[in-house]
Amino acid sequence: MDSCVAAATAVAEGWEPAFLHFTYGQRTQERELKAFYDIADFYGVVRRLVIELPHLAEIGGSALTDVSCPVPEGRLNRDEIPVTYVPFRNANFLAAATSWAEVLGARRIYIGAVEEDGSGYPDCREVFLRAFDEVIALGTRPDSSIRIQAPLIHSTKAEIVLRGVELEAPLHLTWSCYRNSVRACGCCDSCLLRWRGFVQAGVPDPIPYETIPLGKEER
Amino acid sequence: MDSCVAAATAVAEGWEPAFLHFTYGQRTQERELKAFYDIADFYGVVRRLVIELPHLAEIGGSALTDVSCPVPEGRLNRDEIPVTYVPFRNANFLAAATSWAEVLGARRIYIGAVEEDGSGYPDCREVFLRAFDEVIALGTRPDSSIRIQAPLIHSTKAEIVLRGVELEAPLHLTWSCYRNSVRACGCCDSCLLRWRGFVQAGVPDPIPYETIPLGKEER
Repeated sequence: MDSCVAAATAVAEGWEPAFLHFTYGQRTQERELKAFYDIADFYGVVRRLVIELPHLAEIGGSALTDVSCPVPEGRLNRDEIPVTYVPFRNANFLAAATSWAEVLGARRIYIGAVEEDGSGYPDCREVFLRAFDEVIALGTRPDSSIRIQAPLIHSTKAEIVLRGVELEAPLHLTWSCYRNSVRACGCCDSCLLRWRGFVQAGVPDPIPYETIPLGKEER
Repeated sequence: MDSCVAAATAVAEGWEPAFLHFTYGQRTQERELKAFYDIADFYGVVRRLVIELPHLAEIGGSALTDVSCPVPEGRLNRDEIPVTYVPFRNANFLAAATSWAEVLGARRIYIGAVEEDGSGYPDCREVFLRAFDEVIALGTRPDSSIRIQAPLIHSTKAEIVLRGVELEAPLHLTWSCYRNSVRACGCCDSCLLRWRGFVQAGVPDPIPYETIPLGKEER
């Protein structure tokens, strides 16, 4: 959903988008890939690239990719870094995105990173993204002018939902669940974050759920 | 050769090494992979990881990976960025290396990046690597303390050869040629740089060449 609203923002700001998706052994990667193509079709995007980063799963260390490491039932607002953290994931994404951007001649990389809502991932913070901008400026050709745009970085999930509605983003085509691929489980961290966002925004979530997560965020 | 001497430096400085290799559609990737395993065997390294980054070839834009783009015959000391430049390659390498380092609990990433000798790659400069250190510090868990070590960053090829000899690095197991896989071509930029380094160091290059590149650097 965050990627979708970030893309909607890029379109609204007048950029011609190229869409980049990563499969990295995440449990629901087929479902996420379908969402990627659905949203690319929605926006009529011609330049699409799917990059496989299987080493992120091979390296392991995360419940998102390591099937021996169970996805915890959601308990939001914890202080520690959650076990769904894939070490340095966004740096791997941004490095590949920058390589592609340099070849395309693209000038902006939009990413749906969100610092708020307590996800607790160090590579989702604005200070990290600004440091990566510096790496891009120093590590690419002098005539490239690629910068990272993170339009949702300080948004809550409710604000992202509202922004998506305002921009007429295809939220019904997005997918957030870490577990299932037909109906969202309604139990994992990602489902809880998403659901709470829609509830707080006062907007119905258009995707199907296995169980309605109401009240689970209090556990 | 640079990676090998960087590894020899890590060993000499007392670190227990884990070896990481990348295949990214480079023309001589099978030969490079053999060199990786040979050198890992030489040092008795148990923790080895080969990461495939096929998107670097898919993205294209480089003579190193794009077979429609011929490797130029060597002309050293040009000012422009050579066509063998893979956009933002080292950032992709370092991002993956950092992910692995965080899972292993490793504290240093040794890279054989060389700023001298006119390779002209923006992501081989010390200023780029120091900026990436900042990205690592901000993008990994607070308790990790991963830093990049580039012991050859300001060395000439001749100094790298001499350092390798001094550290008893297995230079005979290394491979540099961009073209061939049995005997080095002696014509590409990488062969010319390597050969000139050995000549200037007054050390015989232990690998076989197709043609001896003597004098070609004057063209």
